[in-house]
Amino acid sequence: MIEAHRSSWTDVSDHLATVSSVAILPFGATEAHGPHLPLGTDTMVADEVARRIAEEFDAVLLPPVHYGDTWGTAGYPGTMSLSTETVAAIAVDLGRAASAAGARLFVIVNGDFGNRIPLALATRTLATIEGFTALTIDYPGMDDAIESVRVALPAAPGLNHAEEAETSIILALDPDAVHPDRYRSEYPEFPADFGLRPMQVHRFSASGVFGDPSHATADKGRAILDATVAESVRRLRPLVESLDRS
Amino acid sequence: MIEAHRSSWTDVSDHLATVSSVAILPFGATEAHGPHLPLGTDTMVADEVARRIAEEFDAVLLPPVHYGDTWGTAGYPGTMSLSTETVAAIAVDLGRAASAAGARLFVIVNGDFGNRIPLALATRTLATIEGFTALTIDYPGMDDAIESVRVALPAAPGLNHAEEAETSIILALDPDAVHPDRYRSEYPEFPADFGLRPMQVHRFSASGVFGDPSHATADKGRAILDATVAESVRRLRPLVESLDRS
Amino acid sequence: MIEAHRSSWTDVSDHLATVSSVAILPFGATEAHGPHLPLGTDTMVADEVARRIAEEFDAVLLPPVHYGDTWGTAGYPGTMSLSTETVAAIAVDLGRAASAAGARLFVIVNGDFGNRIPLALATRTLATIEGFTALTIDYPGMDDAIESVRVALPAAPGLNHAEEAETSIILALDPDAVHPDRYRSEYPEFPADFGLRPMQVHRFSASGVFGDPSHATADKGRAILDATVAESVRRLRPLVESLDRS
Amino acid sequence: MIEAHRSSWTDVSDHLATVSSVAILPFGATEAHGPHLPLGTDTMVADEVARRIAEEFDAVLLPPVHYGDTWGTAGYPGTMSLSTETVAAIAVDLGRAASAAGARLFVIVNGDFGNRIPLALATRTLATIEGFTALTIDYPGMDDAIESVRVALPAAPGLNHAEEAETSIILALDPDAVHPDRYRSEYPEFPADFGLRPMQVHRFSASGVFGDPSHATADKGRAILDATVAESVRRLRPLVESLDRS
Amino acid sequence: MIEAHRSSWTDVSDHLATVSSVAILPFGATEAHGPHLPLGTDTMVADEVARRIAEEFDAVLLPPVHYGDTWGTAGYPGTMSLSTETVAAIAVDLGRAASAAGARLFVIVNGDFGNRIPLALATRTLATIEGFTALTIDYPGMDDAIESVRVALPAAPGLNHAEEAETSIILALDPDAVHPDRYRSEYPEFPADFGLRPMQVHRFSASGVFGDPSHATADKGRAILDATVAESVRRLRPLVESLDRS
Amino acid sequence: MIEAHRSSWTDVSDHLATVSSVAILPFGATEAHGPHLPLGTDTMVADEVARRIAEEFDAVLLPPVHYGDTWGTAGYPGTMSLSTETVAAIAVDLGRAASAAGARLFVIVNGDFGNRIPLALATRTLATIEGFTALTIDYPGMDDAIESVRVALPAAPGLNHAEEAETSIILALDPDAVHPDRYRSEYPEFPADFGLRPMQVHRFSASGVFGDPSHATADKGRAILDATVAESVRRLRPLVESLDRS
Repeated sequence: MIEAHRSSWTDVSDHLATVSSVAILPFGATEAHGPHLPLGTDTMVADEVARRIAEEFDAVLLPPVHYGDTWGTAGYPGTMSLSTETVAAIAVDLGRAASAAGARLFVIVNGDFGNRIPLALATRTLATIEGFTALTIDYPGMDDAIESVRVALPAAPGLNHAEEAETSIILALDPDAVHPDRYRSEYPEFPADFGLRPMQVHRFSASGVFGDPSHATADKGRAILDATVAESVRRLRPLVESLDRS
Repeated sequence: MIEAHRSSWTDVSDHLATVSSVAILPFGATEAHGPHLPLGTDTMVADEVARRIAEEFDAVLLPPVHYGDTWGTAGYPGTMSLSTETVAAIAVDLGRAASAAGARLFVIVNGDFGNRIPLALATRTLATIEGFTALTIDYPGMDDAIESVRVALPAAPGLNHAEEAETSIILALDPDAVHPDRYRSEYPEFPADFGLRPMQVHRFSASGVFGDPSHATADKGRAILDATVAESVRRLRPLVESLDRS
Repeated sequence: MIEAHRSSWTDVSDHLATVSSVAILPFGATEAHGPHLPLGTDTMVADEVARRIAEEFDAVLLPPVHYGDTWGTAGYPGTMSLSTETVAAIAVDLGRAASAAGARLFVIVNGDFGNRIPLALATRTLATIEGFTALTIDYPGMDDAIESVRVALPAAPGLNHAEEAETSIILALDPDAVHPDRYRSEYPEFPADFGLRPMQVHRFSASGVFGDPSHATADKGRAILDATVAESVRRLRPLVESLDRS
Repeated sequence: MIEAHRSSWTDVSDHLATVSSVAILPFGATEAHGPHLPLGTDTMVADEVARRIAEEFDAVLLPPVHYGDTWGTAGYPGTMSLSTETVAAIAVDLGRAASAAGARLFVIVNGDFGNRIPLALATRTLATIEGFTALTIDYPGMDDAIESVRVALPAAPGLNHAEEAETSIILALDPDAVHPDRYRSEYPEFPADFGLRPMQVHRFSASGVFGDPSHATADKGRAILDATVAESVRRLRPLVESLDRS
Repeated sequence: MIEAHRSSWTDVSDHLATVSSVAILPFGATEAHGPHLPLGTDTMVADEVARRIAEEFDAVLLPPVHYGDTWGTAGYPGTMSLSTETVAAIAVDLGRAASAAGARLFVIVNGDFGNRIPLALATRTLATIEGFTALTIDYPGMDDAIESVRVALPAAPGLNHAEEAETSIILALDPDAVHPDRYRSEYPEFPADFGLRPMQVHRFSASGVFGDPSHATADKGRAILDATVAESVRRLRPLVESLDRS
Repeated sequence: MIEAHRSSWTDVSDHLATVSSVAILPFGATEAHGPHLPLGTDTMVADEVARRIAEEFDAVLLPPVHYGDTWGTAGYPGTMSLSTETVAAIAVDLGRAASAAGARLFVIVNGDFGNRIPLALATRTLATIEGFTALTIDYPGMDDAIESVRVALPAAPGLNHAEEAETSIILALDPDAVHPDRYRSEYPEFPADFGLRPMQVHRFSASGVFGDPSHATADKGRAILDATVAESVRRLRPLVESLDRS
């Protein structure tokens, strides 16, 4: 694995040409995660998962995109949201550049729910480049891993935001950035049309916590990360191997 | 100074409301800098200068944008360029978010020449927000500092790219990412219309080096950085102080 | 329920003002569904579901949009696809018009998987209109209903396209437009990255059938429609009732 | 003639390849036509004219677009207007899809005055497709036919909106959707710059009627439709025949 | 009348505030008009007509836009065409600026057929400015005036391009820019779909002449101009007078 | 040199094909220059410089663009500003048309500071046309020439707006459009962030004058123009000669 941020262009282009034609981009966010977790939570997770996938496939790891489409939490001051169009444009521009650099597989490790739509649009645009595949990994296996370690219920099914699971992961990655003294449990009352349309969640959650972080541990976080990386690698391996053969 | 990446939304919004309403954004690039310097060179410098300005004013330091408008060096595989529109959109989106978070002064520390046009467009767009000032710092004082330490001539006036000065700065910031064994001196023959229009420089420079890095030292790099930070602070201080009074 | 297509502007605006402030828009597609089903399949289903929801709530039924974002099947000649941007623009324009006409709840009944992204973008844009809610219904309850009547396996989980279920529904709605003599079963071999990125399916399915239509019956179709309408109504009822109270 | 809505993709592509390479698209509107005519008036007329042209040339009839650029009547609640850009985008997308499906002549039967500009823009964009002709038919012959049956004067020359002529046509096509009990005659006083710029007509007409519908009859409507179809066919025939020869 | 080009901003804003709130913009083109007429033909005519209208109403005359949407003649090298979007954007930007300068009536004197669509779009956009009217004058009265002096037939009804009428006008305005020795008569055979869609005319006319210029005289040109100005003034006067009263 | 405005398309295309493949476009502005200078100041200068460059190289002189991106002075009523996007679009459209007409070198003579960004964007877009070079000349040599004749100090370094130098140039070009009786000297107090971001200057200058015009003379104006033209020609000559050789 080589890290593009600290490598020269000659090293990166040589690596893509002779070692592995896979480039991995962590796409994060700078987004409110309650009073106890840092704004960089999503970027930290995406960067870690991307790094470990890159190691597994000896790929080129690109520097993270620190900002995402976090319209849903933009009501909390401190969330730094890009528009849908901006996120899609970043991914398209970087996909094209990765292709020009010699990558044949471009894997975006997505760290935020809000990026799903723009990244889907981007990979569709990038689908027109011949001999190049761009795709997004949305933490496959993470939900199952969370279920197997979780003690507290989530505020809504599939909504893992600033609660036990996310807190556990940051405890594993950057424990000094977590404030256990500020843990609070919040189970908001959701509006009747929750799930039927995009919503800005500050309207019904004062803290931006969706569940109860109090049972979080670094061990749980490591287990969730391990499972997510393992499942990501399992899904990507056939694609990476097909590149090696072609 | 607090770092948004590792702080909670409550800490950032409190800081902007009660300590300092200044937010600093390093805008870098992932761009070819010859075989001996890393792709992240511009981001590293912008991040360092931004961090030191943020310390000086006890401001909020935002996570860096790792990618810029590097069309000019996009001909070297490994350069990861965003379009002009994308860079402008990122800066506009983040400026608006900074304003919503409570910032009244938004300083973009620009690490790459190619970002100048999109960032100028963005600050013009942001000029419509009442009670909010967005501006770009393009390393004031750096050229003079370089002149005072430089031994080798630049390839063209004002063109400090992967030569003695930039190499010195990276030796000061991340020496392990520099490959002195790959130093090469390149003084390209420029086309007749150089300077009259935007150009892609790989057409006349094989390596992406514009000058001679062989006299670079970390001490020179530190001197250049110190002078740049000092001059940046000197120019910004009246603005920051006017915020305190208002 | 009144049908806007055959009602005057005075009738529609009176209805929205005095009877029900709900407007329902069926968003369909003109898209290949194998040799045995009509191109209008998705529009027929969306129109039927929308009509029955409109009846239930005595709402205004808008004329269907016959075209959708069917990039995924655009490789079959006859599919008439709009771009993502066009679909989103239609939904935004019509949402604004519905609001101007007096609607307070705008329900888009989505008939095609490819419309999900543009309709999500559109409802997010429409979320800025005060006192107006725009949302999309994606056939809630349909998957469960299909599972309970299906004999043949689907080609992939959740992929109900021109197989037993869709064929059953069109047998219920417009049997003369179905060609049982052309039924063919196709279980394509999916590429390794199926599900990880948007794909054009003609690359691995010659007919555009994904499963086996041979066990389709109109009764199954009616059961699927009934269940889908019932579940849609169940989810919408709290919203509609909250309008009545406000 | 085959109707795409109820035909399979294989039937449509076969028809375009072996029977006739002409595709016809009715482009309507959902627009206020006074208290006595339905919002779908323009779509009904366009669909009927398109259907009869399609029969004449054994062409493929596409499903109607029910919404148009009706900015001019958007002041009447119930009018569901698309923007100019949206209408143009729909026509461009569908023109490209028709070409991909095998059509060589794409005839848009335009049902609303407001669509003229966007459809002209669209056919200009489509003019770049080799071997493909896209054009718009704006009811040739209709004005003369109206003159020959009309009793009441129009409110302004060439402005046939919800008056004797349009009412007659809907009486011929869908008499149950007409409310003769609500007929009202309105001859607005036009502003001084009427005709010199686009205008929203609700500013000077309370009902959206421009003339006097009271002499309308289904027979007049049929005569107008017959003449319009005949003249449309007369103008298109040379083009259709030139396709047959090439 | 004052000419903005040669007046200061204080003179223009004073004039609009105290003398007349009418601003006139000639919108021309740089477009092929056969071998005997200059590329600036349309601009010359628009500028002259605008100047005389401005004199009549003591208005502010703006400098001409020398370039228009001349896609139709872009096949002749030398035609300098702007896109539809660019022409519309120019007119919108200048309309807004005229309003900000104090104009209440903004009259665009259009010199080219191709500008009609973008100028209609622009005036529609400008219609949202309160207390401001933007409209386009397309040489009212010119066709009748041409009919009354013309000897040679036009190549098609209403198509006055580089033939007797236009040549006469330029003989009146700038005789030295006319080359009578190059007069040629061309009556092209039009394609079957002429008039049904936008077309690039170099496909059927080698010279760009549509008719016969040989009977052109400066006197005829003056008569056409006089009639056009007179009819333009007649149509605008009620509007201008209504400004005076308000 | 031939002037496109008064030449036929055949003359222009012949000239580009056989005499010189250089086309020159003056890009001006209609912008406040104090109470004593005309709004057309920038266009007059650009047109003159362009004309003399065209004469030197026997090039094709295009008609001037009279409007530019003058956002900075848009606060003075009478400034007629285009947006950045519009200016860029004009330059791109005309560059493409010049290339289609046979030009191989397209020189934009820029008359206004505000056009620099959009023209840089445009020339970058035009850089993709093979065998064609588009570039912008920003009055090279003018600053030095001004320094050598100036008596009064400028209000800020490099800011030559409506002061001694510009007034001298217009005295040389169109003395009747200058009002010496209105000369006023204004040395505004600039805000602390002047130079760090784009600004609208009416906020700190009531007149739009930046310096002292009272020592202006036509002779100084001629000297400045001569020097500017000479230096422009000196820089362009190698490019023009390389065209002759290829």
